[in-house]
Amino acid sequence: MQEGYRPDRFRALTWHDATPGFASGADTPRAYLERCLETIAAREPVVQAWAARNEAGARAAADASTARWREGRPLSPIDGMPIGIKDLLETKDMPTEMGCVGYRGNFPKRDNAAVWALRQAGAVVLGKTVTTELGGSHPGPTTNPFDPRHTPGGSSSGSAAAVGARMVPAAIGTQVGGSIIRPAAYCGNVALKPTQGGIHRGERQTTSMSTHGVHAGCVEDMWQVAIEIAARCGGDPGRPGLLGPPAPPPAAKPLRLVVMETEGWAGLDAPSRTAFEALLERIAAAGITLLRRADHPWIESFEQGIAEGRAIGGAITGWENRWYQRALLDQNSEAISPRARAILERAEAQPVSAYQAALARREEAQQRHARIAPLADAAISLACPGPAPVWDGDRPGQPLAPRPTGDAVFNLPSSLLFAPAVTVPLLAVGGLPVGVQVMGQMHQDARMTALARWLLENVAPVVV
Amino acid sequence: MQEGYRPDRFRALTWHDATPGFASGADTPRAYLERCLETIAAREPVVQAWAARNEAGARAAADASTARWREGRPLSPIDGMPIGIKDLLETKDMPTEMGCVGYRGNFPKRDNAAVWALRQAGAVVLGKTVTTELGGSHPGPTTNPFDPRHTPGGSSSGSAAAVGARMVPAAIGTQVGGSIIRPAAYCGNVALKPTQGGIHRGERQTTSMSTHGVHAGCVEDMWQVAIEIAARCGGDPGRPGLLGPPAPPPAAKPLRLVVMETEGWAGLDAPSRTAFEALLERIAAAGITLLRRADHPWIESFEQGIAEGRAIGGAITGWENRWYQRALLDQNSEAISPRARAILERAEAQPVSAYQAALARREEAQQRHARIAPLADAAISLACPGPAPVWDGDRPGQPLAPRPTGDAVFNLPSSLLFAPAVTVPLLAVGGLPVGVQVMGQMHQDARMTALARWLLENVAPVVV
Repeated sequence: MQEGYRPDRFRALTWHDATPGFASGADTPRAYLERCLETIAAREPVVQAWAARNEAGARAAADASTARWREGRPLSPIDGMPIGIKDLLETKDMPTEMGCVGYRGNFPKRDNAAVWALRQAGAVVLGKTVTTELGGSHPGPTTNPFDPRHTPGGSSSGSAAAVGARMVPAAIGTQVGGSIIRPAAYCGNVALKPTQGGIHRGERQTTSMSTHGVHAGCVEDMWQVAIEIAARCGGDPGRPGLLGPPAPPPAAKPLRLVVMETEGWAGLDAPSRTAFEALLERIAAAGITLLRRADHPWIESFEQGIAEGRAIGGAITGWENRWYQRALLDQNSEAISPRARAILERAEAQPVSAYQAALARREEAQQRHARIAPLADAAISLACPGPAPVWDGDRPGQPLAPRPTGDAVFNLPSSLLFAPAVTVPLLAVGGLPVGVQVMGQMHQDARMTALARWLLENVAPVVV
Repeated sequence: MQEGYRPDRFRALTWHDATPGFASGADTPRAYLERCLETIAAREPVVQAWAARNEAGARAAADASTARWREGRPLSPIDGMPIGIKDLLETKDMPTEMGCVGYRGNFPKRDNAAVWALRQAGAVVLGKTVTTELGGSHPGPTTNPFDPRHTPGGSSSGSAAAVGARMVPAAIGTQVGGSIIRPAAYCGNVALKPTQGGIHRGERQTTSMSTHGVHAGCVEDMWQVAIEIAARCGGDPGRPGLLGPPAPPPAAKPLRLVVMETEGWAGLDAPSRTAFEALLERIAAAGITLLRRADHPWIESFEQGIAEGRAIGGAITGWENRWYQRALLDQNSEAISPRARAILERAEAQPVSAYQAALARREEAQQRHARIAPLADAAISLACPGPAPVWDGDRPGQPLAPRPTGDAVFNLPSSLLFAPAVTVPLLAVGGLPVGVQVMGQMHQDARMTALARWLLENVAPVVV
């Protein structure tokens, strides 16, 4: 059992500050990897972040990286970085089982575009991290690294937990609804959910608001991993890809922030609300203007546009999952969990016009978001509705819990709006991490990164 | 050897006019299928349109359809229709080899979303039609049904040839550059290349301007197949899908048409130009105003936007194919042809900024196209640069012919503009079909279909 999490004391595993040692010979990527493996050996029995690891392959890759650093010719600043890959993405050297019975033993022997790019940059693909089933709501075995009774969040459960447990400095997650920003918030990570299409999803193009993103121990590593991928494989087909500088942007102080409520605000627990309001006070005290929904009709209109974000997101993603999940079931009637099957059957009862209606609502929400661009540098909000909840498992005869890995209510906006968002670990509530997030206009990924960095460097965390 | 093609005499195989017989009992879908199989037996040795057929499965499906029609409960107007599926799309009962060494034996046991929808509508999935390698320029064995010395066009070679040879009333094709509209034009088909995203591509989402479309013997069948698919599986993720009525729209006479030149106009052979100009005279004689680039600066601007369509399309598609083609080569160094490999290597030498530049040019071309919407009902142009060319095969030591299945120069515009286009078989040049096309604004698929129908019913074809 870990002691209670405190953002001011927790020291995440980082990479960028280790590379000078690789250049000088004081440290090596291989030694760094071995330290990660020691942490994994110690923590994995409880955290259960990994679906698979290729330790032999990782050691060979780390040795090759060690040689490149020794020769002064690293492939990139992340050459040698051990990294976890969410088990939704194909990897040529490990199975891709997606937390799903229907994909058990699936081994396509191909790297997802982002994985391919990481290897080109010299990163050490250490293993596959646990995902909820098909990135949906049915959980895997992973536990929260700060208290194993609690969920790590999902769907990028293993990626968030592996970073939170200091097993690796970074891991790749994916978000359709809230699957990067929320688990990162529960596990004390920083994380980037890029602008829609920012990182090439490779074979994973079947949903319109899914993005690959990066969980990391610090903003510098987060940005470096993301931009190294995008430089090599670009963004999704038809998208320009992640835009921004080739090195982590320096901290940038915002002038104005919109405090985004979302439909999660009304149901928030009192300690989390207290913590977040205290943080806002510290931000305001630093001279930053905070704008709320009562301050401008465009902000009110923006909030109304996302007020049913869960329903809109559910309608879109449900429809988009229909074809491939039904095809899975046609091959194997036990391929997906009862939880996923219930969602599928609801989606199959919808006509295409319901999907078209949800797309129109998403587009309107995007227009309302674009309208507030001149008002502020970014929106700020909680990244999760309080600390990670406890889920004790399904009980026979009882209705299935709808959200075993927590509620994406604060995350649907960035997904629906195709907007970049960064989780910033600035709060602790009851001994567990609670992240906040900054969210910007499309393609403002680098600005959100700079802004997150400023908050981390200039605003004292709040512990309640 | 067939006698020379004449659009006024050629009678394509059609379906919609056969269904009254199924309802009355005078004919059955099984008997219809058997007639198709007889034609295939007679023509396939020369035409070579099929990569695979499941005749036993087709007969069982046709028998089930026969029973439904007898009971007065067909699943749709295309219940029982034998249909060919381009061998880029997954089918659960047949391999999907994509004309590519790297996919030999590939058998994913899953139906592409459109194939799934067709089966839901009762259609009889008869077989897989030959595609050029991965939908690119390297040809398959298929010959033109009107003269086997000539190409059927590509990449939907088998779909166009199977319809042109009266083997099936309809077949599914796909277009990234010119792969539906052009082969249809070479083979005397009508064909719909829908608005980008109109038909769910299922697993085939890796290019930003690919669409599934329909080759058919008549406009009625073309529309019915397309709309039955879209009604069941919708469009691509994030797209509303094909919009329009549930039955073929009636003929609609246009008031004004823009005569689109494209970069193909300058290099056109004299007989094809003569034939097209003669057709335009007949259209004008019917009281339709024809607008050319000199008639309005917005039309001139539109033409300039697509004037380098081949280069823009090549840059986009080349980049988008990089990841998966390189992954294929990593698994098998002989996976793709030297022709495809040369294109891949050129794309791999490009930075992401070149792709971003091409995307921007595409977007600008789309804006210029949108601007001409008020000027005319549609654009009209040739659908191919003259009749299907002859290609004698690669010669050792010689440079590879860049376009063995013909030139997509008249087709890139509809691809780049995400615009619906319909091939209309109204010309013959030297005994071979030469199609024209009508192209509209996004989501005007039904209007283009109605317009194509009007042309077919009201303008006498031209034979030169």
